[in-house]
Amino acid sequence: MAKTLDVIIIGAGSAGLAALREVRKRTESFLLINDGHYGTTCARVGCMPSKALIEAASAFHRRHSFEAFGIRGGSGLSVDVPAVLRRVRALRDDFVGGTLQATDELGERNLPGRARLLDPQTVEVDGRRYRARRIVIATGSQPVLPAPWRAFGERIVTTDSLFELATLPRRMAVIGLGAIGVEIAQALSRLGVEVTGFGSNPLLAGISDEVVDQELRQLLQREFSLHTGASAELTDAPDGVEVRSGALRVVVDQVIAAIGRRPNIEGIGLETLGVELDARGMPPVNPNTQQIADLPVFLAGDANGRAALLHEAADEGHIAGINAMAAERRCFRRRTPLAIVFADPNVAVVGQRFAELDQASTVIGQASFKRQGRARTAERNKGVMRLYADQRSGRLLGGEMCVPAGEHMAHVLALAVDRGLSVQELLRLPFYHPVLEEGMRSALRELSAQLPSGSDSDLASCGAYQLEALD
Amino acid sequence: MAKTLDVIIIGAGSAGLAALREVRKRTESFLLINDGHYGTTCARVGCMPSKALIEAASAFHRRHSFEAFGIRGGSGLSVDVPAVLRRVRALRDDFVGGTLQATDELGERNLPGRARLLDPQTVEVDGRRYRARRIVIATGSQPVLPAPWRAFGERIVTTDSLFELATLPRRMAVIGLGAIGVEIAQALSRLGVEVTGFGSNPLLAGISDEVVDQELRQLLQREFSLHTGASAELTDAPDGVEVRSGALRVVVDQVIAAIGRRPNIEGIGLETLGVELDARGMPPVNPNTQQIADLPVFLAGDANGRAALLHEAADEGHIAGINAMAAERRCFRRRTPLAIVFADPNVAVVGQRFAELDQASTVIGQASFKRQGRARTAERNKGVMRLYADQRSGRLLGGEMCVPAGEHMAHVLALAVDRGLSVQELLRLPFYHPVLEEGMRSALRELSAQLPSGSDSDLASCGAYQLEALD
Repeated sequence: MAKTLDVIIIGAGSAGLAALREVRKRTESFLLINDGHYGTTCARVGCMPSKALIEAASAFHRRHSFEAFGIRGGSGLSVDVPAVLRRVRALRDDFVGGTLQATDELGERNLPGRARLLDPQTVEVDGRRYRARRIVIATGSQPVLPAPWRAFGERIVTTDSLFELATLPRRMAVIGLGAIGVEIAQALSRLGVEVTGFGSNPLLAGISDEVVDQELRQLLQREFSLHTGASAELTDAPDGVEVRSGALRVVVDQVIAAIGRRPNIEGIGLETLGVELDARGMPPVNPNTQQIADLPVFLAGDANGRAALLHEAADEGHIAGINAMAAERRCFRRRTPLAIVFADPNVAVVGQRFAELDQASTVIGQASFKRQGRARTAERNKGVMRLYADQRSGRLLGGEMCVPAGEHMAHVLALAVDRGLSVQELLRLPFYHPVLEEGMRSALRELSAQLPSGSDSDLASCGAYQLEALD
Repeated sequence: MAKTLDVIIIGAGSAGLAALREVRKRTESFLLINDGHYGTTCARVGCMPSKALIEAASAFHRRHSFEAFGIRGGSGLSVDVPAVLRRVRALRDDFVGGTLQATDELGERNLPGRARLLDPQTVEVDGRRYRARRIVIATGSQPVLPAPWRAFGERIVTTDSLFELATLPRRMAVIGLGAIGVEIAQALSRLGVEVTGFGSNPLLAGISDEVVDQELRQLLQREFSLHTGASAELTDAPDGVEVRSGALRVVVDQVIAAIGRRPNIEGIGLETLGVELDARGMPPVNPNTQQIADLPVFLAGDANGRAALLHEAADEGHIAGINAMAAERRCFRRRTPLAIVFADPNVAVVGQRFAELDQASTVIGQASFKRQGRARTAERNKGVMRLYADQRSGRLLGGEMCVPAGEHMAHVLALAVDRGLSVQELLRLPFYHPVLEEGMRSALRELSAQLPSGSDSDLASCGAYQLEALD
């Protein structure tokens, strides 16, 4: 066996590459091991190709507003689905190319192959053993696909294969209506596919506030058929696949399974670490250090099952990479929770979710975007925003929404939650006119009116009031 | 003369109505006097109709991206300009209707007519005198139209008359390329008008950073012809109006004058107040109280010439209304400066402008959106953002930009400037993936790299580091 390296990183995805970036700043003694595809989940089969698909679908869908604007000929537009998918792949290849630069230059320090831990400082790949002072595990995740469904062959796809399709069939079922399912179902429907969506969870798109869920549900139902609260079963049918859920039976040409992702930890050897694994087979991981128990092993990104989000995976790789090279463990504060679903209107969940609130001490501010001024000028007037604040302190706790430009407003709200701002402090923001953010202000003002700390003015006083008599 | 009222408000625009809202919370003894149209400048001839026009123009312009997306038939689209303008007016009428509700219910306390101050507590309207303990002047502003240009009759329009046009001519000149001129010129060009733009200011759209100006200039020049740095003169031509600027001569069918707005203070009687007026005829106004000198008179909104922006006018009316009913003058902190131009890409100026910076103590972070990931998936990849920070403290001072979704990112930046956040603190924001805000993060990281206060991580530590040895 060769000399002991400083660090071994297992996995060349977003988390592994973020760890690599930190490790390389500190040592040249490392090994990156990767099984299967190079290029990150996000660039290959996740965030990027899905957004390329969604943007094309949205651009095409916009024709339904053309008559209202005074634009003629919208009914003559058509979508060339194979061309849309070719563009998706061309963009994807470019984004993947960007991620490959980090590994292409590593030479022998980049080892393709399947790694297995033998102990907290030893890894085996293809019968050869490698030893390192620290190990970062960042093996990612994969779409869940129940074994019996594999029998349907090419008639069932996940995001791993969806973007490889040369074209789209006439009828598709999307099973699972979380973030990914809702994004894909709406986009495919807008590209002309007859979509039926099935969700076992009664709520859509990761929303926990029923008011927001109901609004989104009504809006989506205008575009495609959706059914939630019951699981779906698949059986062979003469002309396709039959999906059964409760009393409903629908025959489709192809099924998209979007029922979640599971960490790639099978066969990685976590059981050799000498720590207790939970029911999912997961070791204890400190989310502020990414360390497994007190071992010199770090588990980062989708592989630890915490949150399959790019920005969290990148943070975790970054933390693991720094700590893998640190003499003393550094503790990092994690970011304010933020989840965005790129549906139209955008779904966003910021800070504390509705389901996590202590309802007794929380006030809620709500704003509809149906009559919002700017949204009306843009023919995008739909959706609802719900914001939550602590009644006593007046602090903004979080919010859930499905609103136009929700992806942008969610960042303003995340900054406010991160800084611990009160509703009153956030109202000092200049809200330009006319912007969609004025809809958010309506929700904030509805909160302010319920807060004992509310003021008669959105503006702050100049330090102490100047108490000069006027007459 | 009747009894002395508590408050007289002159002007029923955005500032006057904001003042009215505060006054009505505190007394029933008031009089609102309004000369000319009811309905605010913003709703009638400003923010709202212009945005309705711009949104239609942008929706039509989007067809140029259709082939790239895989959408066919875009060349068969046409714009029905009279229908676009009818929609603009229908929306406008609805927005104006909303503003009229506040005055419709006032009965005799709403007096149409032209007010003239006789002294700080007396106003004359149509020969009758009205007396009040306090007076709020909120008479608004109007587009500047040089007297000789009036001779061109209907061949010259301002925003006061533009939205009344039944259709648009083939050739138009836009004179003045500030915020309004750039918005209108681009929108009209996108609706098929052959537009030539003229600006006497060498920089466009209120931008003071030449890097941003150059980027915007290049982008706009792909859509219409524009000329800056020289004044324009108009003369009659056989088939229209000839516009001359420097060596350039262009004949157009109609000219839009967008060379600024001036306060409506002529004949209002400011000279009777006994305070010194400046060269523009303006009395001294305290921007934190809206009070004129130490008089019981308040000057709010466009009428005081400070900033012809809706959100500032509304704040000023609010401040004046509160102080008009206050025994002791209340001082309000004004908001962080924010200006947005609804061009594509959006122009925004937040906090300290480039021209106001102390260059010696400022560092600049820049991000191009040409290769920004999300922008590429949306075929909106263009523009540049420049952010400014104080080198010593690391505080974000402001920024200028022309970028997609600039109107949204400007609000995040305004909140950061308002709260006095450092670049490092703003980098703790969760930046979701893939969003345009990641482009903003690139500019922030470029700033961070130049700051002594920069960290090796965007993440905060958990209070003090936990210094537990790893091995």
